[in-house]
Amino acid sequence: MKLWQKDISSKKEVESFTIGQDPKFDVLLSPFDVLGSIAHAIMLEKIGLLTSNELDELRDGLKEIYLEIEKGQFKIEEGVEDVHSQVEFLLTQRLGDVGKKLHSGRSRNDQVLVDLKLYYRSAIRDIVEEMEELFTLLTSLAEKHKNDLVPGYTHSQLAMPSSFGLWFGSFAEGLTEDMDLLYTAYKLSNKNPLGSAAGYGSSFPLDRTLTTVLLGFEDLHHNVINAQNSRGKTEKTISFALSGVAGTLNKLASDVCIFMNQHFGFISFPDELTTGSSIMPHKKNPDVFELIRAKTNQIQSIPNTVTLLLTNMTTGYHRDLQLLKEAIFPGIETLLDCIQMCTFMLKEIKIQKDILSDPFYKHLFSVEEVNDLVLKGIPFRDAYKKIGYAIENNNFQPNQNKVTHTHEGSIGNLCLDEIKGKMKHAVSNFDFEKTDKAIEKLLFGVQR
Amino acid sequence: MKLWQKDISSKKEVESFTIGQDPKFDVLLSPFDVLGSIAHAIMLEKIGLLTSNELDELRDGLKEIYLEIEKGQFKIEEGVEDVHSQVEFLLTQRLGDVGKKLHSGRSRNDQVLVDLKLYYRSAIRDIVEEMEELFTLLTSLAEKHKNDLVPGYTHSQLAMPSSFGLWFGSFAEGLTEDMDLLYTAYKLSNKNPLGSAAGYGSSFPLDRTLTTVLLGFEDLHHNVINAQNSRGKTEKTISFALSGVAGTLNKLASDVCIFMNQHFGFISFPDELTTGSSIMPHKKNPDVFELIRAKTNQIQSIPNTVTLLLTNMTTGYHRDLQLLKEAIFPGIETLLDCIQMCTFMLKEIKIQKDILSDPFYKHLFSVEEVNDLVLKGIPFRDAYKKIGYAIENNNFQPNQNKVTHTHEGSIGNLCLDEIKGKMKHAVSNFDFEKTDKAIEKLLFGVQR
Amino acid sequence: MKLWQKDISSKKEVESFTIGQDPKFDVLLSPFDVLGSIAHAIMLEKIGLLTSNELDELRDGLKEIYLEIEKGQFKIEEGVEDVHSQVEFLLTQRLGDVGKKLHSGRSRNDQVLVDLKLYYRSAIRDIVEEMEELFTLLTSLAEKHKNDLVPGYTHSQLAMPSSFGLWFGSFAEGLTEDMDLLYTAYKLSNKNPLGSAAGYGSSFPLDRTLTTVLLGFEDLHHNVINAQNSRGKTEKTISFALSGVAGTLNKLASDVCIFMNQHFGFISFPDELTTGSSIMPHKKNPDVFELIRAKTNQIQSIPNTVTLLLTNMTTGYHRDLQLLKEAIFPGIETLLDCIQMCTFMLKEIKIQKDILSDPFYKHLFSVEEVNDLVLKGIPFRDAYKKIGYAIENNNFQPNQNKVTHTHEGSIGNLCLDEIKGKMKHAVSNFDFEKTDKAIEKLLFGVQR
Amino acid sequence: MKLWQKDISSKKEVESFTIGQDPKFDVLLSPFDVLGSIAHAIMLEKIGLLTSNELDELRDGLKEIYLEIEKGQFKIEEGVEDVHSQVEFLLTQRLGDVGKKLHSGRSRNDQVLVDLKLYYRSAIRDIVEEMEELFTLLTSLAEKHKNDLVPGYTHSQLAMPSSFGLWFGSFAEGLTEDMDLLYTAYKLSNKNPLGSAAGYGSSFPLDRTLTTVLLGFEDLHHNVINAQNSRGKTEKTISFALSGVAGTLNKLASDVCIFMNQHFGFISFPDELTTGSSIMPHKKNPDVFELIRAKTNQIQSIPNTVTLLLTNMTTGYHRDLQLLKEAIFPGIETLLDCIQMCTFMLKEIKIQKDILSDPFYKHLFSVEEVNDLVLKGIPFRDAYKKIGYAIENNNFQPNQNKVTHTHEGSIGNLCLDEIKGKMKHAVSNFDFEKTDKAIEKLLFGVQR
Repeated sequence: MKLWQKDISSKKEVESFTIGQDPKFDVLLSPFDVLGSIAHAIMLEKIGLLTSNELDELRDGLKEIYLEIEKGQFKIEEGVEDVHSQVEFLLTQRLGDVGKKLHSGRSRNDQVLVDLKLYYRSAIRDIVEEMEELFTLLTSLAEKHKNDLVPGYTHSQLAMPSSFGLWFGSFAEGLTEDMDLLYTAYKLSNKNPLGSAAGYGSSFPLDRTLTTVLLGFEDLHHNVINAQNSRGKTEKTISFALSGVAGTLNKLASDVCIFMNQHFGFISFPDELTTGSSIMPHKKNPDVFELIRAKTNQIQSIPNTVTLLLTNMTTGYHRDLQLLKEAIFPGIETLLDCIQMCTFMLKEIKIQKDILSDPFYKHLFSVEEVNDLVLKGIPFRDAYKKIGYAIENNNFQPNQNKVTHTHEGSIGNLCLDEIKGKMKHAVSNFDFEKTDKAIEKLLFGVQR
Repeated sequence: MKLWQKDISSKKEVESFTIGQDPKFDVLLSPFDVLGSIAHAIMLEKIGLLTSNELDELRDGLKEIYLEIEKGQFKIEEGVEDVHSQVEFLLTQRLGDVGKKLHSGRSRNDQVLVDLKLYYRSAIRDIVEEMEELFTLLTSLAEKHKNDLVPGYTHSQLAMPSSFGLWFGSFAEGLTEDMDLLYTAYKLSNKNPLGSAAGYGSSFPLDRTLTTVLLGFEDLHHNVINAQNSRGKTEKTISFALSGVAGTLNKLASDVCIFMNQHFGFISFPDELTTGSSIMPHKKNPDVFELIRAKTNQIQSIPNTVTLLLTNMTTGYHRDLQLLKEAIFPGIETLLDCIQMCTFMLKEIKIQKDILSDPFYKHLFSVEEVNDLVLKGIPFRDAYKKIGYAIENNNFQPNQNKVTHTHEGSIGNLCLDEIKGKMKHAVSNFDFEKTDKAIEKLLFGVQR
Repeated sequence: MKLWQKDISSKKEVESFTIGQDPKFDVLLSPFDVLGSIAHAIMLEKIGLLTSNELDELRDGLKEIYLEIEKGQFKIEEGVEDVHSQVEFLLTQRLGDVGKKLHSGRSRNDQVLVDLKLYYRSAIRDIVEEMEELFTLLTSLAEKHKNDLVPGYTHSQLAMPSSFGLWFGSFAEGLTEDMDLLYTAYKLSNKNPLGSAAGYGSSFPLDRTLTTVLLGFEDLHHNVINAQNSRGKTEKTISFALSGVAGTLNKLASDVCIFMNQHFGFISFPDELTTGSSIMPHKKNPDVFELIRAKTNQIQSIPNTVTLLLTNMTTGYHRDLQLLKEAIFPGIETLLDCIQMCTFMLKEIKIQKDILSDPFYKHLFSVEEVNDLVLKGIPFRDAYKKIGYAIENNNFQPNQNKVTHTHEGSIGNLCLDEIKGKMKHAVSNFDFEKTDKAIEKLLFGVQR
Repeated sequence: MKLWQKDISSKKEVESFTIGQDPKFDVLLSPFDVLGSIAHAIMLEKIGLLTSNELDELRDGLKEIYLEIEKGQFKIEEGVEDVHSQVEFLLTQRLGDVGKKLHSGRSRNDQVLVDLKLYYRSAIRDIVEEMEELFTLLTSLAEKHKNDLVPGYTHSQLAMPSSFGLWFGSFAEGLTEDMDLLYTAYKLSNKNPLGSAAGYGSSFPLDRTLTTVLLGFEDLHHNVINAQNSRGKTEKTISFALSGVAGTLNKLASDVCIFMNQHFGFISFPDELTTGSSIMPHKKNPDVFELIRAKTNQIQSIPNTVTLLLTNMTTGYHRDLQLLKEAIFPGIETLLDCIQMCTFMLKEIKIQKDILSDPFYKHLFSVEEVNDLVLKGIPFRDAYKKIGYAIENNNFQPNQNKVTHTHEGSIGNLCLDEIKGKMKHAVSNFDFEKTDKAIEKLLFGVQR
């Protein structure tokens, strides 16, 4: 039995090959396509390529489509090539010839560029918001479990006392640091490419600064070749940001899978969130975290896929760029899924208490004991010898529930407030409100 | 003939396997190891683990080693495991027992972490400075060649008029954008890990805020597990930043290689900078740019190598992390080479004049002609038809030297001042002076 | 507007997260799941775990499902977890309790393993067959165009005379070499994992050699842990094979895109297979080949995605392995698309004649002229000087249509028969007939 | 302090940039360069471009250099560009003008190609031989420990009984399967590229079949463009083969690291082969295996580095290809190191006895108990219920040392002979003797 039986024998198959998965992704771009068109229309009127009446008509028509998209009533019809054609088609159908005027001074290339930038801006915001939620949970878990000790490992060997407070807190602070890559990706997505046309600009006296303001962009790609080349660079930077967050979640998931292993037995989840077997009652498979581990690996492979699509390519648009969507769009969705799932699962996590009171763990405290003696005035070498001697002679008996760390970021001083401050600062950088206001004004305000 | 003949039969081979290339890289870390130790010593004195006299002795001893390193007199001796051991060995040899007191309250793990952070901070600064130089050259070339037209391509097909001014300018602006990833990497490198010990903190009452200030760090990794986990995350972020710059240079090199092809013949370099053949006189091989293209691909492969080393790994130090150096250190050096070589070569670039006056290129101007008619009041569809008809009948004769683009970032309006402003702003973010001052004070100032 | 609005708050979302895209892929596995079950049933009867009557019932029931799958009547119903459950569900529904007996002595793990192996075997065969078709076209194009000279490039510089015969022939021979990786992947796919159960074997006296023969496998993974670990290794090896073929197509597509550039103008395709513009009449965008270039890059990124999913993982099944399907299945389909599209397009390729008679190319022949003199008895150094002198003085006038290469694989001696022989040999290795016969016997023959 | 201070201001820096690390790698190529030259000389004499006396002179001179290389007396002198130049320089210095005649009918491009092919052939052989040694150890460990039970895990959860015999055996069989990729790489390395000149053949009547036989190649790349394009494809295929073996070692190392964790405590190594601490006596850091894990990740990143260097590149030599050496040569050495180190360490492995007699593991046997009942005639569902009920009521008491698996590849039937047969067969494919004989004849036999 043949898996795929195709007879490529006509232009139609060529079309299907070249269009590929675009229609699926283009639906996601539709609201942004409309926003870009409204801004472009306002600008065209300002430079005299549209009359005031034409602008009013176009704006109303576009706003109508925007509302249809919001209601889920928009779709790219069979035989229509892409979202831009579908919007133009609806507009011309409803408004007549004025619909065709919208395309002056822009090319399909900068139109899709602006759609993508606006889409990425919005997607990164979604990620940031999901990360905030997970962050809040992690800090509250850290606070709740600050006194629950657990072994700390180096080389996968028992090493020192640690705590669940420290462990949860480490991922919380990790997320604040991942914000920086996201912000870099956001900044690059927040630059206006409109007006670069096919990558070499236009002989029309476009006002690119105006569309920059209208769409709430922070800046524009000034150089038009650079604007075109930002297709690819933007996706690459986003892929780095996705990979950054994915790396943090991957480590969290790796820890969870091993902490759930019966030899460790440090954490558990309610039965309905794991899979098991009635004749292997101790088996609680951590499927969700195994899949988070795997999905974050998929995400971490995206930078490379993007790089392969771009490398060794000369300046200017190539059709190859279309496939960037297939790399990035699912990556964004997968990351959102993983963050949400982490939050959902960690809400239900159960922590084993008093782990370190088991004598099995007593050697974890040997460094602490040495340090204790040093602080009491015994020289380090002597203290070290003394404890080593006690261990050798099986006389070592540490005070296993006393860990007296006090310095910044230690078991006894988690610095959660400082870490929360970092997150607050990181999120405030994005200034989502400024964008919201611009878009609202573009859609509903008096702009001209 | 066997390529490698080894007889692994003793502990010595195990040592050689585990030490690997570390000695080579550790020499680069040596000045930073000394700086970290000075800061640690000052802090130990403040919390009472060193006397004032001991601190003075240690500081003088460390400063002496620092000066030896600067003079190239420092080396890691045969049989000494790493840079930390070599510094400690020298110190103890010269100062006696006080040299051994330095290790209280820190572990090899946070010691190498702080060395690496300081090294990366310095390496990123070198990259930034080389990029500024290349940037300055690119903007001056853009200014110089702003009127030299050249074809613009889409789909590798002749498409529109472009200019060398626009082309050089695109890479200039591209570099300003690459600065953001470098800054993100710098920020992560600029966080103090000292005090995290083996990744679980210390029972000594360390003052981590003090060492943060002393070493000119912008901030600290508060959570000590997160500080340890920043090993890997820091390298991954740096690899992203290297890959970002590499992507821009890769495109520049790809363009140069094709522009030097005899069918294009747009640019050339002095004979001594290319390779050729006396019986193939038209052959000017662009070896340097081919190698820049290839080396930037090596660099673009680093994020993936780093990710493979890190993924699916649980929290805490693993010896695997050691190999991050082999991925990042050569990558930094290769990128510096590539930027410097770009600058060196582009200083010598020769531009072909009047390319577009060849009738071969006349169709490049058809869009311009259509737009011209539109601006004169002819409806777009009619203008388009008119020009299409002229082309079909071989009557198309554009005004080939007139390109009247005026909008931001177009051929006629390169916005080089705005782009220079972006670079200035990007560089100022790093605030290298603040770091310089801290290090100077640490080494030579009155700190206590 | 939020892109994704999910409320993960119940077990159902957990299920949806863990099932992921499996139902889509599982439909492709369905015929193979049935085949594996028939073989398992026959074996169970032989070792006494099924009666002869039970086997007859099960076999008839499974055959019925197989025929439904072939007719496209099979689907995985809402709420059914996977293909195995759906088949078992249908069987039990139709046959009663005997349907449940089928699962003795196997686990979900080796069941999916055997399904995947059979599926991969079939998919690789499809690829081989598509490659043969493309190969045949390439050799006939090479034969047809053996006298059509074209420049050969090194360093992207004009270097030597080449021919379209040589160029087409190079990809033909390239495909024969790509067959070896496919065969390696096939061999690994053609090993029986059935009987490995959950990766640690079974206490039932299974006859794994019997199922190996029944399913037409060439061999079995003897060690059951190794059988389980072959999940992952098989996919990695397949990804290498896909990447190998993709690399060859990527180079072909890269050449086509540059040969279609107007500066070269060496080849063209009918208008309906390219995209263009009525006002840029010389523009023929090679979209199909740009997308082949890009899609082969997607494929070349798969080995890395697979490696990330697998690396640093301990022995034994992990749920992570499920995501291998998302990497490999679409990769297979994409490669099939690309090969088919190459064949379709190349059928229509038009070659520019007499390219090298243009004086622009005369220096291509300088090496030929030197060699000619050498063959006439003039020492190489003298011949070289003579030609060099003629070039310098503009007296060089080569015989531009005479290229007298005679050695194996040169312009004048393409060795297409030898290359066809290689392909024939490569394909014969697979021995698809043996597999066909086994499957036919399994489904319709008298086996017991 | 600046890390790198360079002043790129002259042709010399350009040379140093372009030569890069070549001298280091070229020393490894030197014996193969000489072999290629002897074969080329014999062929030139046969086609009349060298006299019989000239051939004798050249052959003696080349043989002399070969012996110097074997004795370690050969080096590439300062100022000499590469190995080819050094050999030619020595030859001309010693023999006069006849040394210069050797270059007729070949180009630097096919000369380096043939050197690389011969080098890779030799390197793969070294890998195969090291793998055989590790394989032999693994099978003897499997035999020795066939009765030492250990838990088997799925989802990192305790699942079933396994054994050290099964575990060692799984890697043994894994290595036999990795041989297939190595063989594919070997076959591609074992094709003669000589005579392809700069990638477009030669007008001399070369006898490429003769050099194929002389150098012991299995076949030739017939098409000369394909021969040139095999540079890159060969390295990519080798990188796949390296990655394949690396994947197997990575899993072995991952298992070892976790089996050494104190919670597991299944295996150990003598103190001198691990690192530890006198105050943390239970700590035995598995540094060697952590580094094998990490180094195999470096190796697994090579396919991607190679792909980035090659992708989107047109037909013909590009200087980029030079950097393939930097990816592959160290990869080969690293893999050899890792295999040797594995063998060295596993010779010393100590296995914990009677692990499963600890009641902690009793539920591992529940599936066995169910199957036992089934084999005694109790229907599966009833057996399952019975055991489930016993577990629920804490009455489950399995016979923990009896595992009665009998089928192929199970705990009780490791099939080590079959697995050894596979290895023997895999190694015999390479037919190293044939190559040995050809090379011996080339160097010392009567060939003309």
